[in-house]
Amino acid sequence: MKIGIVGLGYWGPNLVRNFSGNESVKEVIGCDLQEGRLKFIQARFPHVSLTKSFDDLLKQNCDAYVIATPVDLHYSFAKRVLESGRHVWVEKPFTANTKQAIELIELSEKKNVNIFVDHTFVYTGAVRKIKELVDGGKLGDIIYFDSVRVNLGLFQHDVNVIWDLAPHDLSIMDYVISGKKAIGVCANGIANFYNHENIAYISVYFDNNCFAHFHVNWTSPVKIRRMLIGGTKKMLMFDDMENSEKIKVYDSGIEMNNKEKINEALVQYRIGDMHSPKVNQTEALSLGVSEFIDSINKGRKPLTNAEDGLKVVKILEAAEKSIKAKGKMIEIN
Amino acid sequence: MKIGIVGLGYWGPNLVRNFSGNESVKEVIGCDLQEGRLKFIQARFPHVSLTKSFDDLLKQNCDAYVIATPVDLHYSFAKRVLESGRHVWVEKPFTANTKQAIELIELSEKKNVNIFVDHTFVYTGAVRKIKELVDGGKLGDIIYFDSVRVNLGLFQHDVNVIWDLAPHDLSIMDYVISGKKAIGVCANGIANFYNHENIAYISVYFDNNCFAHFHVNWTSPVKIRRMLIGGTKKMLMFDDMENSEKIKVYDSGIEMNNKEKINEALVQYRIGDMHSPKVNQTEALSLGVSEFIDSINKGRKPLTNAEDGLKVVKILEAAEKSIKAKGKMIEIN
Amino acid sequence: MKIGIVGLGYWGPNLVRNFSGNESVKEVIGCDLQEGRLKFIQARFPHVSLTKSFDDLLKQNCDAYVIATPVDLHYSFAKRVLESGRHVWVEKPFTANTKQAIELIELSEKKNVNIFVDHTFVYTGAVRKIKELVDGGKLGDIIYFDSVRVNLGLFQHDVNVIWDLAPHDLSIMDYVISGKKAIGVCANGIANFYNHENIAYISVYFDNNCFAHFHVNWTSPVKIRRMLIGGTKKMLMFDDMENSEKIKVYDSGIEMNNKEKINEALVQYRIGDMHSPKVNQTEALSLGVSEFIDSINKGRKPLTNAEDGLKVVKILEAAEKSIKAKGKMIEIN
Amino acid sequence: MKIGIVGLGYWGPNLVRNFSGNESVKEVIGCDLQEGRLKFIQARFPHVSLTKSFDDLLKQNCDAYVIATPVDLHYSFAKRVLESGRHVWVEKPFTANTKQAIELIELSEKKNVNIFVDHTFVYTGAVRKIKELVDGGKLGDIIYFDSVRVNLGLFQHDVNVIWDLAPHDLSIMDYVISGKKAIGVCANGIANFYNHENIAYISVYFDNNCFAHFHVNWTSPVKIRRMLIGGTKKMLMFDDMENSEKIKVYDSGIEMNNKEKINEALVQYRIGDMHSPKVNQTEALSLGVSEFIDSINKGRKPLTNAEDGLKVVKILEAAEKSIKAKGKMIEIN
Repeated sequence: MKIGIVGLGYWGPNLVRNFSGNESVKEVIGCDLQEGRLKFIQARFPHVSLTKSFDDLLKQNCDAYVIATPVDLHYSFAKRVLESGRHVWVEKPFTANTKQAIELIELSEKKNVNIFVDHTFVYTGAVRKIKELVDGGKLGDIIYFDSVRVNLGLFQHDVNVIWDLAPHDLSIMDYVISGKKAIGVCANGIANFYNHENIAYISVYFDNNCFAHFHVNWTSPVKIRRMLIGGTKKMLMFDDMENSEKIKVYDSGIEMNNKEKINEALVQYRIGDMHSPKVNQTEALSLGVSEFIDSINKGRKPLTNAEDGLKVVKILEAAEKSIKAKGKMIEIN
Repeated sequence: MKIGIVGLGYWGPNLVRNFSGNESVKEVIGCDLQEGRLKFIQARFPHVSLTKSFDDLLKQNCDAYVIATPVDLHYSFAKRVLESGRHVWVEKPFTANTKQAIELIELSEKKNVNIFVDHTFVYTGAVRKIKELVDGGKLGDIIYFDSVRVNLGLFQHDVNVIWDLAPHDLSIMDYVISGKKAIGVCANGIANFYNHENIAYISVYFDNNCFAHFHVNWTSPVKIRRMLIGGTKKMLMFDDMENSEKIKVYDSGIEMNNKEKINEALVQYRIGDMHSPKVNQTEALSLGVSEFIDSINKGRKPLTNAEDGLKVVKILEAAEKSIKAKGKMIEIN
Repeated sequence: MKIGIVGLGYWGPNLVRNFSGNESVKEVIGCDLQEGRLKFIQARFPHVSLTKSFDDLLKQNCDAYVIATPVDLHYSFAKRVLESGRHVWVEKPFTANTKQAIELIELSEKKNVNIFVDHTFVYTGAVRKIKELVDGGKLGDIIYFDSVRVNLGLFQHDVNVIWDLAPHDLSIMDYVISGKKAIGVCANGIANFYNHENIAYISVYFDNNCFAHFHVNWTSPVKIRRMLIGGTKKMLMFDDMENSEKIKVYDSGIEMNNKEKINEALVQYRIGDMHSPKVNQTEALSLGVSEFIDSINKGRKPLTNAEDGLKVVKILEAAEKSIKAKGKMIEIN
Repeated sequence: MKIGIVGLGYWGPNLVRNFSGNESVKEVIGCDLQEGRLKFIQARFPHVSLTKSFDDLLKQNCDAYVIATPVDLHYSFAKRVLESGRHVWVEKPFTANTKQAIELIELSEKKNVNIFVDHTFVYTGAVRKIKELVDGGKLGDIIYFDSVRVNLGLFQHDVNVIWDLAPHDLSIMDYVISGKKAIGVCANGIANFYNHENIAYISVYFDNNCFAHFHVNWTSPVKIRRMLIGGTKKMLMFDDMENSEKIKVYDSGIEMNNKEKINEALVQYRIGDMHSPKVNQTEALSLGVSEFIDSINKGRKPLTNAEDGLKVVKILEAAEKSIKAKGKMIEIN
């Protein structure tokens, strides 16, 4: 298989390394407009051929193309790949708006090719373990999902902190509680330095009394990447900054002795043991590459496909509208 | 000085101990309707006299009364104390609504007596140190305030999680960034178990591009009590679960090389040292008692007075309205 | 039951409070030479009668006496109590040397009264849980025990850091791996400030290829109280500075595929889940008081008795000899 | 410059990558007996030429050779390199005994070539910062050094845990407190699985009332890499498992009001602020490579040279003797 990679910025070396390392991949060709990035990749990966022209790259008849450009260019590059009848891998977030996402989905169906959206976290050992616990009923019914992803990071030119950081957490939520349906989004935040928000808080209401909340922040002195997932049976904390105990499952929960008298009775608490399951440490991107290639070979949709990408973009778009409207709820669908 | 304490529940023993331990206090009289609480206090504090009747207590001519009942009773008890011309200490939150708070303030002015609102955290060494750093200009201008107070706690019968937990954080915010004016509140949340919210998120907009956010939750598997305070010069983390390093001040921040070209230029980051100042460990409640007594003796307003209590109640009231309106912004004043 | 307490220093208020709170105890009498300590206790515990004279106290016909003086006075006070035919509770370490311990044991047997040695940690929920796990075979055979107890603490006048801090850890070890027999002790350390060591390291060799090591230090900038217990099946960490997860049991261990070829084969590791059991939070001292009183009432030896005290003193004595001999092994028995 | 690397095991890829990445290096040739390792390196570094024969490699006239074999082969390979008049880089520990180290030093002097010993930690940002603080007098006079390096790691075939793990910590100690002279070593430990110790504790006595202690363990359920360095003015903790706050300097220390009355006076404690300096994050191995090449170019000794290697080997050798003699002190020199 022959893979063309468009955009060799921050994430580029990881894409080159993981596609090169996959045994089904015979050739990797890279493409970037900046001379510096081409030199950088050449020095580290002498076996990779490189070009400055996307037109050239498209002519090389790769089996699939990877779009790793800024988000506002995803649509136009992916469209040309799809039109040429080839499979496409798009970095997160899938597109800059729902309209683009829907158009690409329709095009891929017409051309009968695959769209893979790189929701990398879905392939981490930790998130797969959480999915396994939730699907296995260990937590009971999920009642809330709370996520914090803050750090002192580089401001993005083209997007606010929501479009930069929240796709990670929204894609994890979408994967983990895939049975729940989001119905409305409220968001608040502030732009302290220029016209893009550097801090934002997003609330997502679901149709079955489930609720999710996301805190994303480029201006936190400390790096926090933590999720709380509350279930009726057990509760889980996922702390991605922890090396050895990323997931902790608490045997503690809420018990109601008498459902009829819930307004009167004191809600009882049971506090028990904590369990921290072993987490597989295979590099997520390498598993993502395998899934993409396997889905092509078998003619099936990949795990993180365009519909998943669209669901995340819908919430991002709604959050942006809500934040402009000072927290007003924006309905989804 | 003679002190009457109304309500000997969870916080009662701490109030009895600290008022008894203050050298200006000669006598403490306790009052509770429940026999069990009276016995509990008698066993631990054999020198304290006790009564089941508030009328009795009011006749005992105490110099000041402490109201430590459920919040919906604060107003009526405090009102009777003020009408009798005595000083009153009210637990947080001050009252169940702004109307009650304003009425008590007017009454106290007419009677020329003091209202102390027990915003205990204001008297902790950590919060006083934060105030000192902020007032000393160490952090620069405050641009955001982010607070998380979650745990697996006892549900309250009478109020939701906002009225139970948020007064702590709102009173800290009000004290620390006293120069900023709140203008609007948005809140979201969910009631998973009965009609009171167990999880809530509150956003507070200020008039000078400052922003605050509060996460309160009774159903978290882990106990987190953490604040991030972002300033233009430095940023601070206050982690109240830490024993020895509650406050960390980060020499890291955001520098903009060229204010004119902010939309084009990449925002630069400077990351430097971290400093954790020593924090005074005197019990906060004992300092609160001293402040209350000193304010009475000197005929001045206490540090945490009824106006501070009112400001917190205004935000609580607005948050409750907003949460019922699915996040719609409620203006303050 | 009537209890006399000799020595009302740092630990005194805890002893007074817990003996007063025990329902079998009708009266507590305290004794200290220092006027200041008597006043301190009187203010907090108005119901306790006090005396400056041990002779007076002994005449008061208490059922049992508690010796909470500096360690060099344990022997003489305990001896007079035993001679008077009363039960005695001695703070840790039991005595200043093995000779004194043996003499007190013989005297107690002659007088048919109980000696309780206050190895408080044995009564903590965490240590009892560890004992339960070890006795239940969960860890397999114990192969090592590693303990660190360091802090920036008050230097003691009368003893070095070994006699001050190590009794805690030695008594935990003795309780947890009671089936193992210590055969030799090596110790190293340094006295940086005056003639008593402020840092010390103690190695204890056991008769069955088990090994223990203790690090005690008065001059550490941070407070660490941590034990590692290695078993052939599982390994355990006990971190007493943790609030909610004091004990962690690791499903990780060492597996040897082929015992014959152990010198050639790479030792295999299996790394699995971690489990943190719930720990009972009842105050240890209150359980110790109950055990003491129950042992008296039932005419049986208490859980932490004079023989346990003697075992700890033997190791302390050997460690002190070894440290003077620059680490030379001192045999036990 | 042309570099030959002997031994392409665990550390091999890092050596190949860092030597290849240095701008003074034009060619890197690798050598290993195992076909698998050669294939592994070829796949990742297609530009590197490889050979199975050390004789071949020696004929290729490299400017310098890197010896990254098991420790028992360091001496013979390094000797042949030195005899051929070329510079040599030897992995830690330098040699298997002091005799070998001395012989190599003499040979290097005769041939006028450099020996670099890869004490990698000396080149980490954290250790360089600690050195800077100690040399700048910030900590005062160093009174103790306490190090813990434990994990659940791979057993080594050829050496015990002391030779495997302690060289890291001994080389850090030697670098940080270079002015102090070690005079004696005591060691204790246990071999639970076969004839090599898996747990060991090493005490090092210095000539000026300074003391160091090292805990190394292959059978700990948790990974701990922590050093405490106590000075008369300040104390420092270096926790290498921390991502953002590896070094913490405590403003706390010990003050003696009256040096004459030290036996009587209670030693006073002052507890103050904590400061965590920023640490440079450049990869240590890349700085080591630069230092090696610069020392060759300038005809000077490298920072971590054969004398430093010898000092570490002396302590390792003494520790091994002491552990066989159950803790008996072994004098150095």
